[in-house]
Amino acid sequence: MHIGDLRTPAAVVDLARLGANLAGMRERAARLGVRLRPHVKTHKCVEIAREQHGGRAGPITVSTLAEARAFASAGFRDVTYAVPLAPGRCAEVASLGRAGLDLGVLVDHPDAVDALDATARAEGVRVRVWLKVDCGGNRCGVDPEGPVGPGVAARVARSGFLELAGILTHAGHAYHCRDRSEIAAVARQERDVMLAVADRLRRAGIVVPEVSVGSTPTMSVVDDLTGVTEIRPGNYVFLDAFQAAIGSCRAAECAFTVVATVVGSYPEAGRLVLDAGALALSKDPGPTHVDPDCGFGRVCGLDGEALEGLRLASLSQEHGIVLATPAGVAAGLPIGTRLRIVPNHSCLAAACFDRYHVADGERVVDEWRPVRGW
Amino acid sequence: MHIGDLRTPAAVVDLARLGANLAGMRERAARLGVRLRPHVKTHKCVEIAREQHGGRAGPITVSTLAEARAFASAGFRDVTYAVPLAPGRCAEVASLGRAGLDLGVLVDHPDAVDALDATARAEGVRVRVWLKVDCGGNRCGVDPEGPVGPGVAARVARSGFLELAGILTHAGHAYHCRDRSEIAAVARQERDVMLAVADRLRRAGIVVPEVSVGSTPTMSVVDDLTGVTEIRPGNYVFLDAFQAAIGSCRAAECAFTVVATVVGSYPEAGRLVLDAGALALSKDPGPTHVDPDCGFGRVCGLDGEALEGLRLASLSQEHGIVLATPAGVAAGLPIGTRLRIVPNHSCLAAACFDRYHVADGERVVDEWRPVRGW
Repeated sequence: MHIGDLRTPAAVVDLARLGANLAGMRERAARLGVRLRPHVKTHKCVEIAREQHGGRAGPITVSTLAEARAFASAGFRDVTYAVPLAPGRCAEVASLGRAGLDLGVLVDHPDAVDALDATARAEGVRVRVWLKVDCGGNRCGVDPEGPVGPGVAARVARSGFLELAGILTHAGHAYHCRDRSEIAAVARQERDVMLAVADRLRRAGIVVPEVSVGSTPTMSVVDDLTGVTEIRPGNYVFLDAFQAAIGSCRAAECAFTVVATVVGSYPEAGRLVLDAGALALSKDPGPTHVDPDCGFGRVCGLDGEALEGLRLASLSQEHGIVLATPAGVAAGLPIGTRLRIVPNHSCLAAACFDRYHVADGERVVDEWRPVRGW
Repeated sequence: MHIGDLRTPAAVVDLARLGANLAGMRERAARLGVRLRPHVKTHKCVEIAREQHGGRAGPITVSTLAEARAFASAGFRDVTYAVPLAPGRCAEVASLGRAGLDLGVLVDHPDAVDALDATARAEGVRVRVWLKVDCGGNRCGVDPEGPVGPGVAARVARSGFLELAGILTHAGHAYHCRDRSEIAAVARQERDVMLAVADRLRRAGIVVPEVSVGSTPTMSVVDDLTGVTEIRPGNYVFLDAFQAAIGSCRAAECAFTVVATVVGSYPEAGRLVLDAGALALSKDPGPTHVDPDCGFGRVCGLDGEALEGLRLASLSQEHGIVLATPAGVAAGLPIGTRLRIVPNHSCLAAACFDRYHVADGERVVDEWRPVRGW
């Protein structure tokens, strides 16, 4: 089937671009001498996770326990759950551990360690924990220079049931960068902060086996990871309009698109309406700090080439409103025309779909099903 | 089960508030003398659609053909598909018609009429069409004063297979309003534009059986719908932080919340992290034109009462970042605390979930499954 014959909106993964992105990150990890533990939250799909490791069920990072369960069922044994664990879900972690999954979880607070330790103790299982460090993203993690980190690490070390896997961070602030040189600076900071934390803990007598960093932007530009043992990029499989805008990649590397149909044509107003709205693309505002007029994704033809003069200006639930400049550009795209949209944020757009159509060029060759829910 | 024992994030529908919202709109429609054809896109759920009509499968509006199929299977026979039809999906419409569904579709362009007419003719089915009019939202629909509307209506009238059900509009620009008086002005305009279009078509000899308007804001304030025959509000079942901000409802009427758990606590920074992010709440920016600091939803306790001093400032895929003012407020909400978030846009947030937990107060009494996909 041709991608232009899909019922729209449809999620399409470009096999060649995907393969190049996967190979590129594998090679980069090998060159930098670090383990690749990709974050599968972007695609949530077993077929892609295997290919991230060249065809085997290697170490992965997940964003939900639903992903942990699904990937464990598919043979993945070494999984890090990289969202702070809700105390109410400790029993699920213990249960996955008893079922043979080597599951690592994040902690950054003594209360979380206490809850996990109590469950592990009650259930008689060992749980691997990572100390989450805030390297500048101001989301989760302990202050690298504050007292909480060493306290939590020491608390873990004292537990007979918890095992400190290492320290872990995510440079979320890389998404505020405007170009590769800014990203490179964040990448250096990410590494340097983590090496300082590892050093501080080790000098306090705590064994820190692993130092884990991540983020697609930083891992796309970094050239020295001395002291780091693993990386956890996620978005690099698909990339998106945001990554291209800040310089993590070239536009031609984006591997995930949403095929949409022109269902409304108002050329006198310079407007088109697509049948892909917020439920197909997400309402991620995109790289507005780099391009205030970025809209909600890049409008391309079915061949994947960007179309000039079209801006996906707004989204409602099932409508995408495209404005044309000059207005006449809209006249060339009558009702029924198929377009491809490179979303602002492929992780959120991919999560809108129950299936991905896998394309070799413009030909659909396979269908993959992502995991959903929590 | 208590809602505080749900695995989070979890979608919770408050049965009492839902019931009051449904009864309120039924009474309003009766008082205004119009048919209620609620838009089910907000909930996509058979149980709620039946209650919208007091327990029967009455007329509904849908936003996808997946909804049309699912609701037809559940006994709903009179359905309007209120997104312009992609020509490639005309055959599905014909097929639903052959299966006995009285399905109305929107047209606003001669090309769409041609495609639909050709399919209806080839398949030997009759299809009911609505002329979509743009009453000011600048999304879809014919210019009420331009030549396209009468041309399309006449083209439909000439077809032996298409039947003009009437004219239809959606006052999407009501969402730009800042208070009830502004919404009331849009409601008057919505009605007046449609009456003028109906009059113009009728004077041209075209039979216009129905005049259909909609939008929860306008239907929440309107007091005179003379000349209108039906209304299609959708969001009113759940309402949300946006509707409350512009005055469509009171905050205490919002019936859909996402239960989340505090999984990160950084009181020294005045920050909490919830396990509800963009995939549980959507990234709808909310009523920023009324409240630039609205954040991504209203933070409430499990009892549904808003908590002072907390702002859901940003969302990443699985994290919700709450900022506390003063910072010390965060200290009162330790890791493991359950909160309820009233989302900015309940239609988009509800679509994040495979199931809704139905609550009588804080007790879960049922579970409903929405339709997904297209």
